[in-house]
Amino acid sequence: MKVQLDCVPCNLRQALEAARLATTDSDIQKKIILKSLEVLSRYDSYKTAPEMGGAVHEVVKEYTGNEDPYEKVKRVAIKMAHDIYPALKRYVEAQEDRLLSALEVSAVGNLLDAGVYGDMRTVDIETVLNRELTKGFAVCDIKALREDLQNVETVVIIGDNAGETVLDRILISEIKNVSGEKVGVFYAVRGVPIINDATAEDAIASGLDHDATIVSTGSAVPGLILDKTGPEFLKLYRDADVVISKGQGNYETLSDTAGRALYFLLKAKCEAVARDIGVGIGANVLVRK
Amino acid sequence: MKVQLDCVPCNLRQALEAARLATTDSDIQKKIILKSLEVLSRYDSYKTAPEMGGAVHEVVKEYTGNEDPYEKVKRVAIKMAHDIYPALKRYVEAQEDRLLSALEVSAVGNLLDAGVYGDMRTVDIETVLNRELTKGFAVCDIKALREDLQNVETVVIIGDNAGETVLDRILISEIKNVSGEKVGVFYAVRGVPIINDATAEDAIASGLDHDATIVSTGSAVPGLILDKTGPEFLKLYRDADVVISKGQGNYETLSDTAGRALYFLLKAKCEAVARDIGVGIGANVLVRK
Repeated sequence: MKVQLDCVPCNLRQALEAARLATTDSDIQKKIILKSLEVLSRYDSYKTAPEMGGAVHEVVKEYTGNEDPYEKVKRVAIKMAHDIYPALKRYVEAQEDRLLSALEVSAVGNLLDAGVYGDMRTVDIETVLNRELTKGFAVCDIKALREDLQNVETVVIIGDNAGETVLDRILISEIKNVSGEKVGVFYAVRGVPIINDATAEDAIASGLDHDATIVSTGSAVPGLILDKTGPEFLKLYRDADVVISKGQGNYETLSDTAGRALYFLLKAKCEAVARDIGVGIGANVLVRK
Repeated sequence: MKVQLDCVPCNLRQALEAARLATTDSDIQKKIILKSLEVLSRYDSYKTAPEMGGAVHEVVKEYTGNEDPYEKVKRVAIKMAHDIYPALKRYVEAQEDRLLSALEVSAVGNLLDAGVYGDMRTVDIETVLNRELTKGFAVCDIKALREDLQNVETVVIIGDNAGETVLDRILISEIKNVSGEKVGVFYAVRGVPIINDATAEDAIASGLDHDATIVSTGSAVPGLILDKTGPEFLKLYRDADVVISKGQGNYETLSDTAGRALYFLLKAKCEAVARDIGVGIGANVLVRK
């Protein structure tokens, strides 16, 4: 998906958020905003918004020396997810269509970050998740996914934010129920901290190492750019029987260049992505492309 | 109130919104964003955010030749306000403290624009207003205002958005109940169309000419800058017994430079203004400064 005009103010807002998380020095915050304006003035030189986002967040890291401004945000999100995990695990296991339910929990888990910072600071995350879970998917290619998961050897999940990583353990468990215990599930994470996206460290803190093989994409941007990933991951990605890509960032970098069949599992958090998929803002989707 | 870092991404978002309202030509929209980035890189040369906003919206007007991108937005807001006016008028007249209630309606009317565009497109504006009206004021200097309104000759209301202008008729009526029918109420509007702020034309379409003398501040920015207003308005402003300044824009331009006692009546719609007043985001306030 190409960079949209909407991405420019959104990335500037993100630059300020990250600057404030990274430093309390208002002079440095100002310098970050000015430098970000410069980066954003070249917005149409970036292929996708996550690449541009990577450049903006690089400014924050460079000016503050803080390589992980979202470290605390991620830690809190993982803690929150651990807290609600048992109830959601029981919820999924009580449903008739457990795979569908686990996919819903996985998509909706993408809202966890909003519980940590942003608009929903004052909202009870459990209330939000419960409301979201009754909403279902606006697009749901579960029939195809269920078929594709039969008798497979390798499933790759391309992770997004830290926090939802904990809830993805429920999805992995249900994938194994469909595909059989012999299936190898790989959970792909970013190579370095970028925004609140999950790294290998976050995946381990989420307990994912008990359920899947954690692999790094090597990515330093909030999305997966195949050209910039290593040969091992690329082989895994290409040879996998099923790949599930989570979240907006991975959708934005992969939607035009996936080079293979993919399932995109996400919550359309912004107008630009919602428009591209053809759903309303806030919709949860599982779409095969 | 000085320009905050928050104002930079917010003004860029506004530039895109205005660009899209003013033209469907995506090349022109792109040029507007690039030029806005340039304007915003000089953000600390502006005394207040509305001055910067004026410069950004000037870019939109210049590049599109559209002098009133929000013309339809304002028309719809005024229509919506006319529709809900009778019920709100009855509501206020049924309250024990009618002045307080009219002030609440006036502050909450500031949300009308959100019903026309933005986040609340799908939300019933009556439901929103009803919820807001039960919230009351976070800061409420009504005791002082009630005293100040006794036996006065001149009251000036500095208006904000088109739409809430209709509901301000209820406030003017209650001011006259307190001050007596001989009080002269002046309703000040912008000199030219700027965002969805009310001009004289919008005030007349709101029926305000039946209740008050409509005066132009001459302002071309979304706030009142005293240095840039004409001598007639300045005299009226200085000599008035009571001045009520509505909305964030007027607060931002006047809070440090009012030169006289003022009542600020507004809904704190953004973090920066809320922080400056010392209330939470979304709070309604009537504050004497």
